[in-house]
Amino acid sequence: MFHCDVDTGIDMTSPSRMKNAADRRQHQSWPQRCRRSNMLILVGVALCTLVSVCDATDTDIALDAKATLNHRIQSLDLLVFVFLLALTVLTIWLFKHHRVSWLHETGLAVIYGLIVGAIIRYAGTSATLVHMQVEPQGVPTYSDKVPPDTLWFNYPVNQTNGTKVPEGIKTYAYVFRGQVHDVDENEIDLKATFDPEVFFNIILPPIIFYAGYSLKKKYFFRNLGAILTFAIVGTTLSAFLVGGFMYGCVKLMPKYLSSSFSFLDTLYFGALISPTDPLTILAIFNDLRVDVNLYALVLGESVLNDAVAIVLSGAIQNYGEHYSNTGEFETTAFLRSLSDFFSIFILSLMIGAAMGCLTALMTKFTRVRDFPLLESALFVLMSYSTFLLAEATQLTGVVAVLFCGICQAHYTYNNLSEDSRQRTKQIFELLNFLAENFIFSYIGVSMFTFPKHHFDAGFIITAFICAAIGRAVNVYPLSWLLNIKRKPKISANFQHMLFFAGLRGAMSFALAIRNTVSDARQTMLTATSLIVIFTVVIQGGAANFLLNWLKIPVGVDDETEQLNNYQVHSVYNSMDNSHPQTDVESGAGGHGKMRLSGGTESNMDTPADGPNGSLGGPSGGRRRNSHEKAILARIWGNFDTKYMKPMLTHSRPTLLETLPVCCNPIARLLTTTQQLTQDGSEFRRVDSDSDICIDNDTGNGLSQDVGPGTGPGVGRRNSLSRMEILEHVQSPVSTRIRLLGFYGKKL
Amino acid sequence: MFHCDVDTGIDMTSPSRMKNAADRRQHQSWPQRCRRSNMLILVGVALCTLVSVCDATDTDIALDAKATLNHRIQSLDLLVFVFLLALTVLTIWLFKHHRVSWLHETGLAVIYGLIVGAIIRYAGTSATLVHMQVEPQGVPTYSDKVPPDTLWFNYPVNQTNGTKVPEGIKTYAYVFRGQVHDVDENEIDLKATFDPEVFFNIILPPIIFYAGYSLKKKYFFRNLGAILTFAIVGTTLSAFLVGGFMYGCVKLMPKYLSSSFSFLDTLYFGALISPTDPLTILAIFNDLRVDVNLYALVLGESVLNDAVAIVLSGAIQNYGEHYSNTGEFETTAFLRSLSDFFSIFILSLMIGAAMGCLTALMTKFTRVRDFPLLESALFVLMSYSTFLLAEATQLTGVVAVLFCGICQAHYTYNNLSEDSRQRTKQIFELLNFLAENFIFSYIGVSMFTFPKHHFDAGFIITAFICAAIGRAVNVYPLSWLLNIKRKPKISANFQHMLFFAGLRGAMSFALAIRNTVSDARQTMLTATSLIVIFTVVIQGGAANFLLNWLKIPVGVDDETEQLNNYQVHSVYNSMDNSHPQTDVESGAGGHGKMRLSGGTESNMDTPADGPNGSLGGPSGGRRRNSHEKAILARIWGNFDTKYMKPMLTHSRPTLLETLPVCCNPIARLLTTTQQLTQDGSEFRRVDSDSDICIDNDTGNGLSQDVGPGTGPGVGRRNSLSRMEILEHVQSPVSTRIRLLGFYGKKL
Repeated sequence: MFHCDVDTGIDMTSPSRMKNAADRRQHQSWPQRCRRSNMLILVGVALCTLVSVCDATDTDIALDAKATLNHRIQSLDLLVFVFLLALTVLTIWLFKHHRVSWLHETGLAVIYGLIVGAIIRYAGTSATLVHMQVEPQGVPTYSDKVPPDTLWFNYPVNQTNGTKVPEGIKTYAYVFRGQVHDVDENEIDLKATFDPEVFFNIILPPIIFYAGYSLKKKYFFRNLGAILTFAIVGTTLSAFLVGGFMYGCVKLMPKYLSSSFSFLDTLYFGALISPTDPLTILAIFNDLRVDVNLYALVLGESVLNDAVAIVLSGAIQNYGEHYSNTGEFETTAFLRSLSDFFSIFILSLMIGAAMGCLTALMTKFTRVRDFPLLESALFVLMSYSTFLLAEATQLTGVVAVLFCGICQAHYTYNNLSEDSRQRTKQIFELLNFLAENFIFSYIGVSMFTFPKHHFDAGFIITAFICAAIGRAVNVYPLSWLLNIKRKPKISANFQHMLFFAGLRGAMSFALAIRNTVSDARQTMLTATSLIVIFTVVIQGGAANFLLNWLKIPVGVDDETEQLNNYQVHSVYNSMDNSHPQTDVESGAGGHGKMRLSGGTESNMDTPADGPNGSLGGPSGGRRRNSHEKAILARIWGNFDTKYMKPMLTHSRPTLLETLPVCCNPIARLLTTTQQLTQDGSEFRRVDSDSDICIDNDTGNGLSQDVGPGTGPGVGRRNSLSRMEILEHVQSPVSTRIRLLGFYGKKL
Repeated sequence: MFHCDVDTGIDMTSPSRMKNAADRRQHQSWPQRCRRSNMLILVGVALCTLVSVCDATDTDIALDAKATLNHRIQSLDLLVFVFLLALTVLTIWLFKHHRVSWLHETGLAVIYGLIVGAIIRYAGTSATLVHMQVEPQGVPTYSDKVPPDTLWFNYPVNQTNGTKVPEGIKTYAYVFRGQVHDVDENEIDLKATFDPEVFFNIILPPIIFYAGYSLKKKYFFRNLGAILTFAIVGTTLSAFLVGGFMYGCVKLMPKYLSSSFSFLDTLYFGALISPTDPLTILAIFNDLRVDVNLYALVLGESVLNDAVAIVLSGAIQNYGEHYSNTGEFETTAFLRSLSDFFSIFILSLMIGAAMGCLTALMTKFTRVRDFPLLESALFVLMSYSTFLLAEATQLTGVVAVLFCGICQAHYTYNNLSEDSRQRTKQIFELLNFLAENFIFSYIGVSMFTFPKHHFDAGFIITAFICAAIGRAVNVYPLSWLLNIKRKPKISANFQHMLFFAGLRGAMSFALAIRNTVSDARQTMLTATSLIVIFTVVIQGGAANFLLNWLKIPVGVDDETEQLNNYQVHSVYNSMDNSHPQTDVESGAGGHGKMRLSGGTESNMDTPADGPNGSLGGPSGGRRRNSHEKAILARIWGNFDTKYMKPMLTHSRPTLLETLPVCCNPIARLLTTTQQLTQDGSEFRRVDSDSDICIDNDTGNGLSQDVGPGTGPGVGRRNSLSRMEILEHVQSPVSTRIRLLGFYGKKL
């Protein structure tokens, strides 16, 4: 690569023939009239040999060859990543096979990425880019604020052999790409870099959707309060604290750095560094079968804080770009950003939930389940359209797919055929796996290949410290606050683990790489990349040891948890309802009860039931029912069981039973025959599967348990067979007959 | 939309404020010095309201809003297609539910596409594009053949409020897009159109891969000769005939049309219109369970002729662009194109096969099957990297993935875990379904929205006639030729059905839309689109009736076919080997025999075995073994059984048995312990599944049969249970022991 400064009007070029790729250096110079600027000529050496195009020297052919070359380089770039992923997969297998626990798969992907990135960087493959400075034809009077979308450029063709090009001028179209911020030193390097928007539109959606789709709903709802506190309050708090602290630190730094950072920049950094990544830590937790409540806390928080962070950073960006004129604090602008934050979050949530419910209705009221392929296709299409719909209405697609995923798992999943359940889960599991590993590989590769990195040791060190402080602020004070009212307290060891589990990942990186226009943003990208790499590789690797050191129970069997639930649950039920029921069966969806008891009777996945015990750390075992605590969650649980589930799924009690009599026509419309005629085993399946569906999450090896003859997710939780047996003892046939009678009477 | 011609240097503009989208008309004029040309100003009305950006009138904000708007329009476009697909899915279900047979799903997708396309076209949503004519800064001396990749454009910013932009000039980068061919009338319209390359790089690969992966290998190999004749000879013949005939017809047409077509253009048209589409017709065949040999002929031909057509059209393109200088016939150029054709086809085939075998080796020699998610990921990554590798080495990715798919099904599939088998099949089935329906929807939509259509009734009618003639030339003479040597002749009714089954589809459309620079090409695109729509909707709908009318057997049960095979097969075996074996079991992989008999002992899917009977039409029933006919296929089958399968899968006989003694070290290296120690049931599974894997193809409802407790594909072919029972009677334990002894001796 070399610059050539030409000030005079003399044209000094040596047009090259593209005999082969090694020779393919394009020299081009341009005299400049208006102001002096260096013409940068990028010289690239193509990787492989071109097809022989020596004979014809036409512009068309050269262009064609160039297009071919570009296509090949793109293919090659992608191939690098695909091979990288394949290599990662094989190494992961090797590690799993030999039970290596000090390096996890995402760490591995990052490390491989770093190695390949270094190779790409120093192997000297780069695409050829030729720049030319242009000006409008004619007198340069500009009238519009926005630069034109396309430029048409009249390019006179060299008539080396004039057989095919009659006219001497061709017009080429150029499409707007973006602003050139650094005219003097701008090396646009196409070394295996992708458009950052790819992350937001292609890579993140399946990851986030899968997070929602595979959420362990039971434990999630049981710890809803803590999760929401950590995710919403904690993330926001952490963002502002990190932002403020960073701003203070940056102002103490050398002038060139401190001048480029505004408070909004550091606040943006705070927002992007606050979300934690579920991936690595949960894979480890899952392998070790860590305490389910800790698992639920970490998963729930990290899933939700991704959503919070993306909306928060969007609001900050809006504040800076649209609302604030001075860059200083303005109350109205702040309030508008705040309302942005809430309205976008809630509207996105609602769009996601609405689309999820729509899919549930579609699958409930059509018999599309007779054709599992169609059903799966419908499911995938509806989920993807949620993302697109949110984006098209200027909301946040990522947040929408998260809540769409939760609704799909909670409602739609129950309506799907067995085949579709497996298929959708497996597909999104695979997509998630590939997307995650791709993004971590890319983080590694981009450390070397992304042209807009800006290393600054001071900033990076400060960022590391601030990120840790932000996490600490998120965990410890909030845990203390929660512990005031929370009986099964979050023990100190759990708090340490929560602090330690705050790995940064895909979302932080994606937010950082989205905007790299200024020096400040580039410095932030570098710091973020390093923090992600460090936390994923080092913290991820050490998680295992720390779990041991903190004496956090691992190898917790869901079966014992489950069984404990049931016992406690039935006790709870009998206490609460004043219906002394000594049979364990009632917990598995006690449809022996009629109408009015539907409110207090609870499915396994409603938040009201079961203990939230065992969260007291290793000394735990204090069990209590969550009666007086999660009131909001309990109200929702009852509403869900009484109205949402009967409307959206084939579950019982039906709306005919739960709605007031006056609404019977509507209720009849929304109740399927299947709902009324299904037999007990079907019913049980519908009810319990909504829990089971979310059992096979991140664990890669788990799905092998789904062998022939077993439904999905039976792997870990084979206690269900016990319930099944119990249930068969007390068949709900009588209830069904009674219900049919009821239905018949209304007709 | 309006043009404004401004010849003077006066700047007459009224910069608009972006208060809301409805007002957002951008006026821009430019005085022109060099030559007069109309400045086209595209005025677009954005769909929805923009966020309020009235306060700040900065260029940055305007740009940002523009980018947001573009993103939203893109999301909206995609959303249209996703909704369209969802609608198609629901309607397909409705049709299947009510057993509507006169309109098939692809036809439906096309019709919906047409409707939505018309709505988009006349609803007046279009993106805003502003053009500006530019010239290089300074004295315009051009030196290079190739126009620059990017233009840097200095744009002075209107300082309406100068708070944030200190300098008056910003530099924007513009990226090369392509040549503007029609400067005067160029309405670049972004109405729901995609880059045609999307079809080749995203849509086609999964379709073609799935075609290979789900090929019914047994019937395919049995009819290999006919299939290869139809696909290679027939397609080429048809391409040249259609090309020649069209050229003649076009020359008789009005001057403006005849002058724009060269012989190469019509030849390209011949190449793109010759491949037939497997999709619709096979879905119908599958639903009706048509005669399996007819099915195999149609499937095999249409899968292979896609590959032939893409390479052929590439060779024709190369001839025109690189080899020929005059556009007339040149022997050397022709020979080079011919060598291109063969070398690209064969190299692509080899890359595909090699990557397939590599995946087989990976899955054989690692225990990655313990982690089905990793295994599936590896499978998908390797398959996709085949495409990329072929593209990066300037071969044809589509051809490579086809043969990769065949190899994956033939070898790798046997090594996969049960979970991965299902998962990979289901994933590619879904991808295939979505991609197919997308492409057919797009064909419909693009009839109205793609800006480069050129309707010419004469050409279209001629094209329809020529396409029919081309198909007839493909089917009838070749059938006649084949029937000379072929004992179970292809009956006249079958020939009519083959002729009628020549629907045109995705590949024709993709090839037509790839290049639309000239009038001739645009006319070809329009004709191709119409032919595709017509054949898919009308021929696809009528296929059902025609099958009845031609008295072609439908409702053929694979079970009877299968059983007949076995009986005949064992007779064949006993004749040929002089090993009188009266037990039916030998056909199911007669591993009771030792070493030397491995050559003649045949798996179910080797071409040598079984009858190719029943191809004689409804009167059929003549059964003979294919001994003297498919010699090449038989040699390959033996080689496959003796060397390829033992090397790449866990099948038996092992290489230790089939290779000469001197190669024992290598053989031992390539033989796994599992191969030697597996028990009979495992063995049977490995052998027979290679057939079963390919059973669940295009039929959408079939996979519902894959219930718990059954392996994939058991649905239609439950006769296997019979074999299983038979096999358990004669357990191959003795053989295994003998083999282990052999192995031990060598050690």
